Amino acid sequence: MDENPASESATLLVCCPDRRGIVAALAQLLHGHGANILEADQHTDRAEGVFFQRIHFDLSELHTDRRTLEGSIAEVAERMKMTWRLAYADRARRVALFTSKTSHCLYDLLLRHQGGELRCEIPVIVSNHPDHKQVAEQFGIPFQVFPITQENKREQEEQQLELLRREGIDLVVLARYMQVLSGEFLDAYEGAVINIHHSFLPAFQGGRPYHQAYERGVKLIGATAHYATRDLDEGPIIEQHVIRASHRHSVAELVRKGRDVERSVLSQAVRWHLEDRVLVHGSRTIVFE
Amino acid sequence: MDENPASESATLLVCCPDRRGIVAALAQLLHGHGANILEADQHTDRAEGVFFQRIHFDLSELHTDRRTLEGSIAEVAERMKMTWRLAYADRARRVALFTSKTSHCLYDLLLRHQGGELRCEIPVIVSNHPDHKQVAEQFGIPFQVFPITQENKREQEEQQLELLRREGIDLVVLARYMQVLSGEFLDAYEGAVINIHHSFLPAFQGGRPYHQAYERGVKLIGATAHYATRDLDEGPIIEQHVIRASHRHSVAELVRKGRDVERSVLSQAVRWHLEDRVLVHGSRTIVFE
Amino acid sequence: MDENPASESATLLVCCPDRRGIVAALAQLLHGHGANILEADQHTDRAEGVFFQRIHFDLSELHTDRRTLEGSIAEVAERMKMTWRLAYADRARRVALFTSKTSHCLYDLLLRHQGGELRCEIPVIVSNHPDHKQVAEQFGIPFQVFPITQENKREQEEQQLELLRREGIDLVVLARYMQVLSGEFLDAYEGAVINIHHSFLPAFQGGRPYHQAYERGVKLIGATAHYATRDLDEGPIIEQHVIRASHRHSVAELVRKGRDVERSVLSQAVRWHLEDRVLVHGSRTIVFE
Amino acid sequence: MDENPASESATLLVCCPDRRGIVAALAQLLHGHGANILEADQHTDRAEGVFFQRIHFDLSELHTDRRTLEGSIAEVAERMKMTWRLAYADRARRVALFTSKTSHCLYDLLLRHQGGELRCEIPVIVSNHPDHKQVAEQFGIPFQVFPITQENKREQEEQQLELLRREGIDLVVLARYMQVLSGEFLDAYEGAVINIHHSFLPAFQGGRPYHQAYERGVKLIGATAHYATRDLDEGPIIEQHVIRASHRHSVAELVRKGRDVERSVLSQAVRWHLEDRVLVHGSRTIVFE
Repeated sequence: MDENPASESATLLVCCPDRRGIVAALAQLLHGHGANILEADQHTDRAEGVFFQRIHFDLSELHTDRRTLEGSIAEVAERMKMTWRLAYADRARRVALFTSKTSHCLYDLLLRHQGGELRCEIPVIVSNHPDHKQVAEQFGIPFQVFPITQENKREQEEQQLELLRREGIDLVVLARYMQVLSGEFLDAYEGAVINIHHSFLPAFQGGRPYHQAYERGVKLIGATAHYATRDLDEGPIIEQHVIRASHRHSVAELVRKGRDVERSVLSQAVRWHLEDRVLVHGSRTIVFE
Repeated sequence: MDENPASESATLLVCCPDRRGIVAALAQLLHGHGANILEADQHTDRAEGVFFQRIHFDLSELHTDRRTLEGSIAEVAERMKMTWRLAYADRARRVALFTSKTSHCLYDLLLRHQGGELRCEIPVIVSNHPDHKQVAEQFGIPFQVFPITQENKREQEEQQLELLRREGIDLVVLARYMQVLSGEFLDAYEGAVINIHHSFLPAFQGGRPYHQAYERGVKLIGATAHYATRDLDEGPIIEQHVIRASHRHSVAELVRKGRDVERSVLSQAVRWHLEDRVLVHGSRTIVFE
Repeated sequence: MDENPASESATLLVCCPDRRGIVAALAQLLHGHGANILEADQHTDRAEGVFFQRIHFDLSELHTDRRTLEGSIAEVAERMKMTWRLAYADRARRVALFTSKTSHCLYDLLLRHQGGELRCEIPVIVSNHPDHKQVAEQFGIPFQVFPITQENKREQEEQQLELLRREGIDLVVLARYMQVLSGEFLDAYEGAVINIHHSFLPAFQGGRPYHQAYERGVKLIGATAHYATRDLDEGPIIEQHVIRASHRHSVAELVRKGRDVERSVLSQAVRWHLEDRVLVHGSRTIVFE
Repeated sequence: MDENPASESATLLVCCPDRRGIVAALAQLLHGHGANILEADQHTDRAEGVFFQRIHFDLSELHTDRRTLEGSIAEVAERMKMTWRLAYADRARRVALFTSKTSHCLYDLLLRHQGGELRCEIPVIVSNHPDHKQVAEQFGIPFQVFPITQENKREQEEQQLELLRREGIDLVVLARYMQVLSGEFLDAYEGAVINIHHSFLPAFQGGRPYHQAYERGVKLIGATAHYATRDLDEGPIIEQHVIRASHRHSVAELVRKGRDVERSVLSQAVRWHLEDRVLVHGSRTIVFE
């Protein structure tokens, strides 16, 4: 998008009951502090009467300081019953990548990060298998293995959480991490764990989904990136995409196509999250692309 | 595709256990009768060991006659344990369109037929409501209303079937026909009833799917055209497609997008069926595009 | 989108040099008159320093009246060197459809209009051929033929313009109208003539584009909807889309695919224009989807 | 696709004037040698009267030997005025990747190769810059720098060709190699150099294409993979694809989107070439997907 990550700027995401004057109040507030709105996008859910807004603004000529600005926002927010989040461009988000045995999503994220497409730091890669140690080394990122079993899961997750806290992790990206996170883990990182999974029309129950897709002769292979919640694979959807398939494609080919769509959908979802373009509301997202 | 419907040509679809020499046997057979292969496409399902082929060939310099040719094919078919279907381009398929209250699919099919895109005759439009009488008149096609209720369903369906037989109908297209066909009806037109329905990732159970799609914030709206079977909406898939959606789209907008994708997917499926490009095998299709 | 055309609402489109406080000024202004902002979307072109905004707002509890509101907007606009356009939802736009011999775009627009997808009145269909008289009749719309030749072009166009003025036409949609409009005509309807044409990668010079596309074996067939300007087919692009093709498609099939993509792209562009989502700036558009 | 690269199989690509009996003759020939046809796909260009076929067949129960089989094919080919190419699955193609300063296409090809998606050996990476030495090392592939200038171009290209011959290279992939190959180079590798370039609708002349695309407000960013010929960027198209863009995307974002579509289109084209799915005929390709 048109935004310069290096500049002294910030992004405000708000959500509140719809009423008159919200836009004016926020615009006035920012103007009053000397902030210049660079991009603003809003959405009103009429059925539910809820207002959402994303404001990206320049801080370089702020009359006051950040703390004062935050105080003013908090005041308006209280008055408007607003939930809000403010992110400064000069404070890079810290992301942990979780992986298991397949590397397509991991590589895609690392290459995009290396190419400057993802505005974040990646201080650690976490896995339940040692397989991708070398990949991590190639990119100069510490690699931590947690060999989770049914018996040690609770304890291992606690150690993972401690590592994440120690590293100041803001976002966990499950880049084909094949362990189900516990409710406790998800509570600790609510709205901050992004997962990717394959999607088909129709959806299949049970195991070996690509075999089922082959059996049913599906013509589209899809992937869905979503926030992980306690409802397995049912969290708020951030992005979805599909790719064509035909009877000519073997199960192996469907899997390959699935990998292609998974990696591009996951990277897109992570990029939007890092650019503060995603607001979660109940079971769905508002994505200000 | 590259095929001239007006020419003296035919299309052979075959399916049989895979073994050596099938391609050679059929090619030799056709060559022997003076038929010239114009297009041929084949597929082998290795896992199951099943062979599929579509051969489109020119009949204009046939040394023998159609009956003799058919006899020869039947002989080879018996030897190879082959199921087969032969369609002559100069014998137009007769199609009945079934509709209810929405007209987007109906109009799309009628306009494409009028524009020469669908090689068939449409001798009748069937509905359980009188709403689209005028549409039928615009295109000069007889319109038959069968006001089906829970009580009279069996009897009305029998009358529908009688009408279809009287009109020599080869294919029934459910252009958003909102009645579930009985098993008896489907048995009578096995592999010859094409249906369209919306598809989402993830799939939703229960009613009001577009409301559910809105609630879940889906990013794609899809449609699936399939052969109708006793397993409601679970018949072999012919074609699928999706269209992007976002949080900005109201339920009404999602419905509109759904209509767009439904009509194009249904027309594509009908076109492929009429061009003898679709083979059903178990729960899936082979589509020789 | 989420907007109710029937409600007492309006849409304001503005464009001005970027500076601090524009968003606040407009939000404050509308708030002051009792207008409630329903949707707002903005964009800043940083390179050129130009600000664009679309504000859709509710008028039902306006403290003042429309004239007073317009006066206030005009004042701010003068101060900010702003160009602006205000459209009321209860004043339906009047659209003239121009057509020649192919009907796919014409039908698509008429059916969408009939289905309530396009918020406008269509008081007249204009053609240089009599072919689609019956189509117009089906939809109950007057049909005017202007049999343009090289000799009478100027005079016929003057009569067309007179008709458009008499009918109070706001928008001219060239639904595959195969006459080049003169500069005089385009000046009279600047920014209010939408055209559709096929697009290929690579682009081809000269005639018979689908034959050239076939010769070059293109894998995509596209269409571009744009505002017509004196630079033939080079006006600001509103929407583009493509559809896949292969070596199997004859020229006739490519033409059919081209029709499919043309009609959907043109309808999308017209819908966005009628919902006041399109701003023209120099040689490009800002489309607030 | 459904083909097992490890199996003892081969792929025959043929092109000849259309006539009766070609399919039968080839099927008979292969059957006679004990070869089992696994996949066959054919196409007839009616306008030009040219026949194309791809036959993938199993060699494991060949009655004769490869040399004898080739002799038989050569005989039929001479009789039918056929050009043909036979590739054995157990003889891996050798591919040289040419690169310059951007790495997105290079990485994509290397990762897919590493993941087993591309059936080939990559014995060397060639560049006119030293930048990607480390990337090559990561994947354990020799890296050769040819620092081409206007003065030394002829001599450097000769050294490149010598390297390619020494390494037994079958295919050169220009993975964003920013040097124009000379006619001599292209003659030496006719039909065996695949290039990728960005594509827009409309196409732009002159430099800085993404700036032009931004200026024109294009809604689609595309890429075309083609065989390199003496007509710069005009060789037979293998694959094309597009990705959506909007006014919100800066030039940098358009470039990023361009990279995404370039890498997937190039990989697809290379995969098809390596699976012997592409036949060149005049200025276009037949791609048996």
